Amino acid sequence: MRHLTRVLTAAVLLLVAATALADEGMWTFDNPPAAQLQKQYGFAVTPAWLDHLRLSAVRLGGGSGSFVSPDGLVLTNAHVARGQQQKLSAPGRDLVTDGYVAATRADELKCPDMEVVGLASFENVTARVIAAAPKDADETAALAARRAEMAAITKESQTKTGLQSDVVTLYHGGEYWLYRYRAYTDVRLVFAPEETDAYFGGDDDNFTFPRHDLDMALFRVYENDQPVKSPDWLPLNVSGAKEGDLVFVPGHPGSTNRLMTIAQLKFQRDHTYPQREQSTKEAIDALHEYGARGAEQARQAAAGLAGLENGRKVGHGEYLGLLDPTVWAAKEKEEADFRARVVADPALQTRYGQAWTQIEKAQEAHLSRLDQLSGRSLGRTGLARTALSLVRAATELQKPDAERNEGYHDAQLRRLRYRLLSPAPIYPEFEQLQMERSLKRVLDKLGPDDEFAKIALAGQSPAERAAALVGGTKLADPAARKALLDGGAAVIAASDDPLIVLARALDPLLAAQEKWEKENVEGPETAGEQLLGAARFAVYGKAMAPDATGTLRLSFGEIKSYPYNGTVAQPLTTFHGLFDRALAFAGRDPFRSSPRMSAAAKTIDMATPLNFASTCDIIGGNSGSPVVDREGRLVGLVFDGNIESLVGRFIYDGTANRAVAVHAAAIATALRDVYGAGYLLKEMQPR
Amino acid sequence: MRHLTRVLTAAVLLLVAATALADEGMWTFDNPPAAQLQKQYGFAVTPAWLDHLRLSAVRLGGGSGSFVSPDGLVLTNAHVARGQQQKLSAPGRDLVTDGYVAATRADELKCPDMEVVGLASFENVTARVIAAAPKDADETAALAARRAEMAAITKESQTKTGLQSDVVTLYHGGEYWLYRYRAYTDVRLVFAPEETDAYFGGDDDNFTFPRHDLDMALFRVYENDQPVKSPDWLPLNVSGAKEGDLVFVPGHPGSTNRLMTIAQLKFQRDHTYPQREQSTKEAIDALHEYGARGAEQARQAAAGLAGLENGRKVGHGEYLGLLDPTVWAAKEKEEADFRARVVADPALQTRYGQAWTQIEKAQEAHLSRLDQLSGRSLGRTGLARTALSLVRAATELQKPDAERNEGYHDAQLRRLRYRLLSPAPIYPEFEQLQMERSLKRVLDKLGPDDEFAKIALAGQSPAERAAALVGGTKLADPAARKALLDGGAAVIAASDDPLIVLARALDPLLAAQEKWEKENVEGPETAGEQLLGAARFAVYGKAMAPDATGTLRLSFGEIKSYPYNGTVAQPLTTFHGLFDRALAFAGRDPFRSSPRMSAAAKTIDMATPLNFASTCDIIGGNSGSPVVDREGRLVGLVFDGNIESLVGRFIYDGTANRAVAVHAAAIATALRDVYGAGYLLKEMQPR
Repeated sequence: MRHLTRVLTAAVLLLVAATALADEGMWTFDNPPAAQLQKQYGFAVTPAWLDHLRLSAVRLGGGSGSFVSPDGLVLTNAHVARGQQQKLSAPGRDLVTDGYVAATRADELKCPDMEVVGLASFENVTARVIAAAPKDADETAALAARRAEMAAITKESQTKTGLQSDVVTLYHGGEYWLYRYRAYTDVRLVFAPEETDAYFGGDDDNFTFPRHDLDMALFRVYENDQPVKSPDWLPLNVSGAKEGDLVFVPGHPGSTNRLMTIAQLKFQRDHTYPQREQSTKEAIDALHEYGARGAEQARQAAAGLAGLENGRKVGHGEYLGLLDPTVWAAKEKEEADFRARVVADPALQTRYGQAWTQIEKAQEAHLSRLDQLSGRSLGRTGLARTALSLVRAATELQKPDAERNEGYHDAQLRRLRYRLLSPAPIYPEFEQLQMERSLKRVLDKLGPDDEFAKIALAGQSPAERAAALVGGTKLADPAARKALLDGGAAVIAASDDPLIVLARALDPLLAAQEKWEKENVEGPETAGEQLLGAARFAVYGKAMAPDATGTLRLSFGEIKSYPYNGTVAQPLTTFHGLFDRALAFAGRDPFRSSPRMSAAAKTIDMATPLNFASTCDIIGGNSGSPVVDREGRLVGLVFDGNIESLVGRFIYDGTANRAVAVHAAAIATALRDVYGAGYLLKEMQPR
Repeated sequence: MRHLTRVLTAAVLLLVAATALADEGMWTFDNPPAAQLQKQYGFAVTPAWLDHLRLSAVRLGGGSGSFVSPDGLVLTNAHVARGQQQKLSAPGRDLVTDGYVAATRADELKCPDMEVVGLASFENVTARVIAAAPKDADETAALAARRAEMAAITKESQTKTGLQSDVVTLYHGGEYWLYRYRAYTDVRLVFAPEETDAYFGGDDDNFTFPRHDLDMALFRVYENDQPVKSPDWLPLNVSGAKEGDLVFVPGHPGSTNRLMTIAQLKFQRDHTYPQREQSTKEAIDALHEYGARGAEQARQAAAGLAGLENGRKVGHGEYLGLLDPTVWAAKEKEEADFRARVVADPALQTRYGQAWTQIEKAQEAHLSRLDQLSGRSLGRTGLARTALSLVRAATELQKPDAERNEGYHDAQLRRLRYRLLSPAPIYPEFEQLQMERSLKRVLDKLGPDDEFAKIALAGQSPAERAAALVGGTKLADPAARKALLDGGAAVIAASDDPLIVLARALDPLLAAQEKWEKENVEGPETAGEQLLGAARFAVYGKAMAPDATGTLRLSFGEIKSYPYNGTVAQPLTTFHGLFDRALAFAGRDPFRSSPRMSAAAKTIDMATPLNFASTCDIIGGNSGSPVVDREGRLVGLVFDGNIESLVGRFIYDGTANRAVAVHAAAIATALRDVYGAGYLLKEMQPR
């Protein structure tokens, strides 16, 4: 019997191994899928090759990027740069619509709040974190002890190396790694194309393929007012890659939920996504309402709107994935297989067997207070969130580092300050509209007698209250924020800024709610996930990549067509395709080429590849990731996934899941032939 | 109560009217949707305009076409011409692959068996057909009486006018119309493009959009060895139509099943389509096996293969439609509404209320003998079918005209002869393979002890028997067929041709089976359909178009994009799109441009529109239909529907159902700039 079990297990393992031959996985740099790359593509991963990719890759603006010259030039997407373009704009000077080309280095524009970080080094601290929890500690105590140890490791590293440090939890607690980052805050805008070239097809074409976008931008990283030296950089391979070529994507996928249990997926499907669809719709409506007030308001609203519409499409694609019976069947099979293997081993079953039920109970607890948890919030209102952060910071910073909430640890303070003190413009008229809508939502959702609603409204209508709060606050001024942040608890307590007064009154309610959530939902859920993480790790080892965590990962795959729409999608597009689609819609928005692109049409080679699709496993956060070839040269720039990839948050299916990238030849053509920036192209060439 | 019912009925009628504003319907020329065209598009239909379209339109080769010059030039699709191109080919001369351009009229190639017919006149004979059935006749007798009257009307018309005549049943018996056709049998091939230009994207892109095909061909109709004069013809509007333009499609949609009951649809979904998927697969496998034997065999197999693959994709799309819960819900609602309106009127309920059950019972009867009915067939084998037709003709022609089976009436004999005596080449090696597979299928499906199987196999293996039958028959020779057909019953009875011997033995079995089917399935089902046809006609009148019947219809709509694949499909494509897709696949099959097209790439204007999508309601049989503008000029050439249109057999949904056509500008560009046939383009110009 025991023998039979082993045979079966081997058979299952073979099955798993066969499955793993898909181009799945966002792999950590300590554990690249070397054997698979060797077997499937005849490619030998070397430590030097890996280090070169890692040191060339950066994270910025919620996305990814890479050094593409030895002088600190960073390539990313226009849509990653868009927020900075918007913040650098002003009435009459619209760097989003018109793009920007710095004629000389002196013209490179310092961004108000763009930070670039690169993973300088990393080490396994699993033993130390695990050892921190006393053997006889209960779950909550063990969790707290591990968290305190992680904060200590982070602080110690930061003090010792001066590098920004993080302890990263992988495999839901199967491993802990200390990541150290080099961080740069003087980042300057060098190049961004006109909006219609960067986002040709707009929200319609977003998350689809075939695609025709020059979604690229260049920044330069400075230190001491000089371009930084970046010895690890990816030279542009102008001829790029073609169908069937093996390519790699080093980047920063934000998060995946592939290890979620069926109970968690059900909660997502039945509550999280429907709620998210509703709130995204409300936020988009607000921006449309605001943008309709005038040209300047429309300009202010545009960047936020693009982000929200992007989010809506992502969310909807993920939601549809969860509603797909095929996906559901695959996930149920996955869980059944995993559970069967735990059950089959008495030791595993004793240690981990109850984890699924524990997670299920956490979902039930969450559901029992769903309305309150989602209703007691001021939503997306920027100034209110700032006020709440300032009040919370004053409380948290009085505690010892180890006891603080996530986001307020010593090691995290530099980033907190950077965010709270950003000089980016704030538009009071828009803030007031957002505040009014948030307050209306609070009232609708909680009713006038709820404690939170009473404090938030203070007996006024949403419109009156919003006008009073936004009209009275000084928080739009970075100096006022700085005074409150630097002043600490005493200054916060004494402030009569109406938003600070409001935040002070709401903070205890929110803190109590967070405490309840931590104890009843997040705590048990995380503990259950950690049990499953350990179980999975015990059963499968590191044969599977961990869920994405916003940290540096390596994906791989090939440029490949896929079945769609009754036929096969082409593996790449050319400039012919761009003009075909623009002409088909008679150049109406969002299918319009820029004046510069239209002028260049006579001279550029239409057969030049423009975008391509590869099987690389990516997700939001990978935007701006370089695509590199076997030799580590830049052959493309990830900017999207196709519509079939959205379900990738939960499951990867290589049949149709594709990463969408700008082709290297298009990058060269855009810089040289369309935007007259051949000097930048020259800087990006191998030497 | 009665008053209330009327109010409700009016409300439902309003609803129907609102729904009818979609561009739905394949309308007969006696009942164009004039009010809707006026209201929705501000277009006034005139009798002269209608006559001009009708007299310009023709039916040919299972598809549609139109006169495009005063000298008998007929435009249709390359895929309608393909069979003739194949039959005009020979080893070393492949008119499918290489296309054909007649340099002068003397080079126009006479087709072996292509017939062109045009609807010369039509008249309503409903009263006469209905009156033919005695008032007290039962259902079967009434049906027989009406059929006899239809045959009499046909014969009478043919004798009187010399025009090929048909009585067409519309609205499932709501109306009967006498259609008279001018028929031409001397039809010559004038122009066909190279295969890769006509079918760029091949089976992959078939039934999809965006599309990039020059699926066009030109024939010329001759009489007395001279080009026929065609006073009604459609001049080419070279600039063509653009997005939003109203366009019309006069053509010959083969059949739709939009009036099927839920019981019929269930039978289709659960039996007809699964069986069809299987038999199409077998036929395709046979052709692949044959084509793999050598280049010449591959050439012979190609045309049949293209047709089968086309059929497979159509069938699969229709099947998927039937599996779609949304479609199902719509059809169930449709039937529920219709039944409710019949039930609501006691007179209607008494007359028609039992029809649904009657049809359901016919499905059950069909199901009870399904295996035998589908198994007792020699399938697609060409020579066996010819033998069976010859034997049957001998029997049928001995009966009085009114009692004969469909296809053997006097008025139909010319076409029967034309088909049976075609000089088109027959390939014995291929016939033998097909026969062997058919016999194997008979054996597998019925078992060795079935009467039909015993006779078919005659104690031999399928391979032996096929070799003996095909090796021994003389039916490949048109003269041998002519002798048997002209000789009649005596000559057939005396023939020792092994296929005739086999057909003689099988014919009584098949006749008995047909009789059973007619009495138990087809008869009751048709009678039920006729009841429902009358009920529908009583309830809705002619506000809905009748199901397609292969006769001339008028569709209308606009050039329009539609939601697909997460974005919007472009309303048209350009030559840019063709080269984009070819380059994307590095020109590999089936995404290859012809040598002539590649050579022309340097000179043609890439921005020229190539294909477009319109909301016109079409289906198989419409291939080759002209697309005309308000002025009756040719702006396009229908060659396909998109994948979303396949469910159109059962239901039209204007959201995504699109007809796909070659744009007039592409027709001009192809003739003038790619194929050096500017003289043909000149002939097609308005004067």
